[in-house]
Amino acid sequence: MDVSRYRVPPGSGFDPEAWPTREDDDFAGGKKEAKKELARLAVRLGELQARLYAEGRQALLIVLQGMDTAGKDGTIRHVFRAVNPQGVRVTSFKKPTALELAHDYLWRVHRHAPARGEIGIFNRSHYEDVLVVRVHELVPPEVWGRRYDHINAFERLLADEGTRIVKFFLHISKDEQKRRLEARLENPRKHWKFNPADLSERARWGDYAAAYAEALSRTSSDRAPWYAVPADRKWQRNRIVAQVLVDALEAMDPRFPRVDFDPASVRVE
Amino acid sequence: MDVSRYRVPPGSGFDPEAWPTREDDDFAGGKKEAKKELARLAVRLGELQARLYAEGRQALLIVLQGMDTAGKDGTIRHVFRAVNPQGVRVTSFKKPTALELAHDYLWRVHRHAPARGEIGIFNRSHYEDVLVVRVHELVPPEVWGRRYDHINAFERLLADEGTRIVKFFLHISKDEQKRRLEARLENPRKHWKFNPADLSERARWGDYAAAYAEALSRTSSDRAPWYAVPADRKWQRNRIVAQVLVDALEAMDPRFPRVDFDPASVRVE
Repeated sequence: MDVSRYRVPPGSGFDPEAWPTREDDDFAGGKKEAKKELARLAVRLGELQARLYAEGRQALLIVLQGMDTAGKDGTIRHVFRAVNPQGVRVTSFKKPTALELAHDYLWRVHRHAPARGEIGIFNRSHYEDVLVVRVHELVPPEVWGRRYDHINAFERLLADEGTRIVKFFLHISKDEQKRRLEARLENPRKHWKFNPADLSERARWGDYAAAYAEALSRTSSDRAPWYAVPADRKWQRNRIVAQVLVDALEAMDPRFPRVDFDPASVRVE
Repeated sequence: MDVSRYRVPPGSGFDPEAWPTREDDDFAGGKKEAKKELARLAVRLGELQARLYAEGRQALLIVLQGMDTAGKDGTIRHVFRAVNPQGVRVTSFKKPTALELAHDYLWRVHRHAPARGEIGIFNRSHYEDVLVVRVHELVPPEVWGRRYDHINAFERLLADEGTRIVKFFLHISKDEQKRRLEARLENPRKHWKFNPADLSERARWGDYAAAYAEALSRTSSDRAPWYAVPADRKWQRNRIVAQVLVDALEAMDPRFPRVDFDPASVRVE
């Protein structure tokens, strides 16, 4: 499947209103076929991760962003179901601690950048520093306004030094968010995921959309592209994310390393 | 399955020579049945992890030790195949860095202790500081000799503060190690896992066995028990480890938290 149409072209404007939050029912052969293909891609991802880990020369950084309930947790669970947890590190960026706030906003992020051989997944990320921070006016506009340049420079550093970066904006509609919040309220096993503050965030939907529009427009680059993924339907979302990741890892082409001795000459006593 | 017989009784001597490295063919209903049961246990582990994460009050620390090729990596891959990588953090302790060596040996370990809600897996651990360090005489006997007490006190701290600890010694025979090293030499995809230094380590088998014997004898406690798992056969090893972990998590009894608002009263606009 060609997923290039979900890529936000560098230098172009990104408009969430004009971008789809769902595909048709017959997308990727329909739900059943898409799920089957996801299972295949998940296994392929596991194989590529094993090579990446063995090779130990390149890293993959995955950034996951989206409105509340967009499915960041579920994407990780489904797409990485066949990947060895030993080679994957998930970092969930929450409200910064006092120590983190005593540093620049990229300090805590840099600490969690994946090492060579690793896949690092950021569940939320440094982008919150131009999203929630902007919407809630936690710093003045001239402060967050400078950050797009910092972020581009930071990602360039990572890319230049051997980390491939792929960023996903999981794009849901406001109606779909309503359904998901209601589902959390109805299911006792999901109550803990509901935070009454989610409603006041929802009331700022337009502000967040504007913040995402600017963030994606200004930071989608060839070396660190954004993919805006239709996410109203989980099976479409998972299928697309898995395909983008498999394509990225195949382009990285990790290989089992050659050894500097002759295996045939070794005797085990 | 009752796995208590693999537990090293606190206060007793552990003798690797007298401990089995394999069970009979009909163990746990035979290989096919054991694999089926492993699949079931893996899913159960995933469910319990989801509860542990949601609850956010307790942590689980898993320590994996064993001779080279004992199967630490493979155990993680197989037992945790159905667990969401978001709630699991694997730390592989390698040769200490200069910064780590500038601190006491538990400093780097403490940093990687799992947070509440997490499962932390140590692939090798602080036990190397009474194993490889002892065998290679990296510090004098009076230095490593004091460490059992430090380790017991450290694990007591973790346990008192909410972390359940389960430690596994994956027990293989010297013959089985020979077969596995030879398999690495024969398979180009596995060459990178073979390190010629493995042979000199193998030559110290007896020294390592003595170091393990003392370590397990002196640090198996009710709050942080050691399980010495027959590991010559992977299907037996995986089946036992998965059962011990499911039992441990069921005893922790993590629960989806109750919320302090009335979900029925919330309206999503």
